[in-house]
Amino acid sequence: MDKNEMIGLLQERKFAALKNDMQEMMPADAAQLLKELSEEEELGEKELTFIFRILPKDMAADVFAYMDTDLQMLLINAFTDRELRDVLDELFLDDTVDLIEDMPANVVARILKASDPQVRRQINEMLRYPEDSAGTVMTTEFVYFHPGDTVEEALDRIRSVGLVKETVYTCYVTESRKLMGTVSLLDLVVADKNEPIDEIMETTVISVCVTDDREQAANLLKKHDLAAIPVVDGDRRMVGIITFDDVMDVIAEENAEDMAMMMAVVPNEESYFKTSVFKHARNRIVWLLILMLSATLTGAITNHFSEIITTIPLLVSFLAMLSGTGGNCGSQSSTMIIQGMAAEEIRLRDFGRVIVKELCIAVICAVILASVNFVRVVLFYHDVKIAAVVSLTLVGTVILAKLLGCMLPMIAKKLKIDPAIMSAPLLSTLVDSCSTLLYFTIATQMLL
Amino acid sequence: MDKNEMIGLLQERKFAALKNDMQEMMPADAAQLLKELSEEEELGEKELTFIFRILPKDMAADVFAYMDTDLQMLLINAFTDRELRDVLDELFLDDTVDLIEDMPANVVARILKASDPQVRRQINEMLRYPEDSAGTVMTTEFVYFHPGDTVEEALDRIRSVGLVKETVYTCYVTESRKLMGTVSLLDLVVADKNEPIDEIMETTVISVCVTDDREQAANLLKKHDLAAIPVVDGDRRMVGIITFDDVMDVIAEENAEDMAMMMAVVPNEESYFKTSVFKHARNRIVWLLILMLSATLTGAITNHFSEIITTIPLLVSFLAMLSGTGGNCGSQSSTMIIQGMAAEEIRLRDFGRVIVKELCIAVICAVILASVNFVRVVLFYHDVKIAAVVSLTLVGTVILAKLLGCMLPMIAKKLKIDPAIMSAPLLSTLVDSCSTLLYFTIATQMLL
Repeated sequence: MDKNEMIGLLQERKFAALKNDMQEMMPADAAQLLKELSEEEELGEKELTFIFRILPKDMAADVFAYMDTDLQMLLINAFTDRELRDVLDELFLDDTVDLIEDMPANVVARILKASDPQVRRQINEMLRYPEDSAGTVMTTEFVYFHPGDTVEEALDRIRSVGLVKETVYTCYVTESRKLMGTVSLLDLVVADKNEPIDEIMETTVISVCVTDDREQAANLLKKHDLAAIPVVDGDRRMVGIITFDDVMDVIAEENAEDMAMMMAVVPNEESYFKTSVFKHARNRIVWLLILMLSATLTGAITNHFSEIITTIPLLVSFLAMLSGTGGNCGSQSSTMIIQGMAAEEIRLRDFGRVIVKELCIAVICAVILASVNFVRVVLFYHDVKIAAVVSLTLVGTVILAKLLGCMLPMIAKKLKIDPAIMSAPLLSTLVDSCSTLLYFTIATQMLL
Repeated sequence: MDKNEMIGLLQERKFAALKNDMQEMMPADAAQLLKELSEEEELGEKELTFIFRILPKDMAADVFAYMDTDLQMLLINAFTDRELRDVLDELFLDDTVDLIEDMPANVVARILKASDPQVRRQINEMLRYPEDSAGTVMTTEFVYFHPGDTVEEALDRIRSVGLVKETVYTCYVTESRKLMGTVSLLDLVVADKNEPIDEIMETTVISVCVTDDREQAANLLKKHDLAAIPVVDGDRRMVGIITFDDVMDVIAEENAEDMAMMMAVVPNEESYFKTSVFKHARNRIVWLLILMLSATLTGAITNHFSEIITTIPLLVSFLAMLSGTGGNCGSQSSTMIIQGMAAEEIRLRDFGRVIVKELCIAVICAVILASVNFVRVVLFYHDVKIAAVVSLTLVGTVILAKLLGCMLPMIAKKLKIDPAIMSAPLLSTLVDSCSTLLYFTIATQMLL
């Protein structure tokens, strides 16, 4: 169903057809359609709530979970207490927690009031986990058995709890809440009905602690191709699971965060259009100011050499090329190293190996760039001496940029700072100062 | 088990204990341990093959699939034809295709010879799909039923084909190979035994075409939180599935590719250490040369203004700050837009909206940066006129950089070029030329 069809059915009051068509849609698509229609002001609050009300309860909750905060808030305000409770009952606990984190206090109070006491306690617990920890992305809904249960008892239990697909692909075997092993739904289906669970369970279990970084959980799940990873507390008692779909969101967020940091933007979890102009400006101005003021150093170096600049003003015209090439060389290296470290291919103990490799790459690049540049300058300006000064500086700049580019992210990691911070912009500013100093020093020696 | 334990058990010839300990490991960890030991030359070809031979067949194949190309090749060369066939039998078809893509021709011939004719035909078909298409990452192993099958027949079929977890979470209902619907393993477990499949199947199915881009498949799976997405041919006949674990690898690769492009490196699928120094240099030198030669334009502009440079050499000392700030502002905007487009939040029709938003952000940033800079220059050099020239140029540069930074990636997308190419380095070079021209023009007007 597209937008016009939906508006058409609404206007002609063909509600049965509307309900039918909505049910055929994937929840994520339905949520997106409603969002676009409300953004284009084709749907008011009243129509939106109406459409939501004709959906079957479970689909309504799914659609709700895929909506963005604005639309969710609009609906919550329109809901009766009874309706709010129905939606909350169908939501996964981690979706409820996400919801609460984004809502103003009065709405949070209403949500907590509408949840039953046990859920309320779990919500409060999850809200207390450290930021970006495994605890904040896990869901507490999972299926567990006792080691002595038979396969048939286990299958009965799955039938009776009636959970949703994602959370039941892998089930957990616990004893006094301690994690003993895992058993997949397929294992249960294939196994003999009367076999005890502890005979068929897998005892090699990868798990994370509730306070571990969510990125670590994501990496483990990805590395071992798991559908879900169990989350345990300090006493190895099982408290939740993180499923593959949540991990994909974590990976996307962490990537966006890294890329933002590498481009000197303070990371921001909200989407581009949702973020106000002032917040965007604030996220960007911090690094711009820091970098602008650091560039003062390069300025001071240049200023120190004003004598040679007035004598040979042509020298100035190569500054942009030198600083650009230095910056590019540095960011190439730092990107490779940051990626290699993220993929766990490059470790801190590879420090020496990386430096040797980057040095070799730098020498090759430097020789090619300097040669091309030498020819170009001689052809354009017929001045071999200036060509030599520029090319020599280029060699030094490229090698320095590549070495700093690989060392800084590794040093940052060693100091437990996010390596992404040590990338392009900061590096360029640093390389810039060094290459300017080198350039004018060589020029003074060779040309004055 | 850690490295020393393994070496110890090998040297003491405690093979039963070694086998036991190996079986307790996760396959990915076992593969990594063997890789590290062979890199540190603690394990030769003979020991490695020996360890591999004591593993049970299915685990051996799993460990093999997680190994990197070098180790796989070493093992294949050591294998008898019989052993090679055993490993290939246990491998997923998509892993076999990956293997073949990385191997030299003589090894490929041996692999194809060891596969049975049907598998060989499938491999050849998969090798023919366009690069980065859904066909190249799918696996052809999936479970399908006929619409009239009962739930019990379906479960019997699952038991008899004995597939691996990832591929059976979602099963497919087909009629003359056309995809009719999906049914999850959980649905089958919960349903009444005698119910026909077409009564319980989900008929709203998200699928991709075998020639679609693999990124599209990944985005759909991620958007709808699916465990697997079916792949169909032009006639909607089902040919394979892409599972969530393959999608995670696709996402990681696409991300690495984007980031490399954004930092002026030609993307490379191999890992950092695997890639030779010469290949690294080749991947980097292309863009370095292009950008170095483009910087010639900025050089020519500077050169054109040599008169004012000789008169007021102090002007040169602000060039680095201006070009740095311009580059940073531009890359901030382009990163935000590239990310927004990748997340499908920003579409081409938002062009106007994005420009207005970036313009507002640019004005705020420009005013703050220019004011701070004005104060700094007046304090340091006691020259209000020069301070005014620099700050005016800064305002122009920031606004220009932010506008180009948001427009270029969108224009690239419109022209069906990867937007990542339009980011930091190319943008900086362009902004540099404009800001230099602006700077010296304003300076000539106001100071000479």
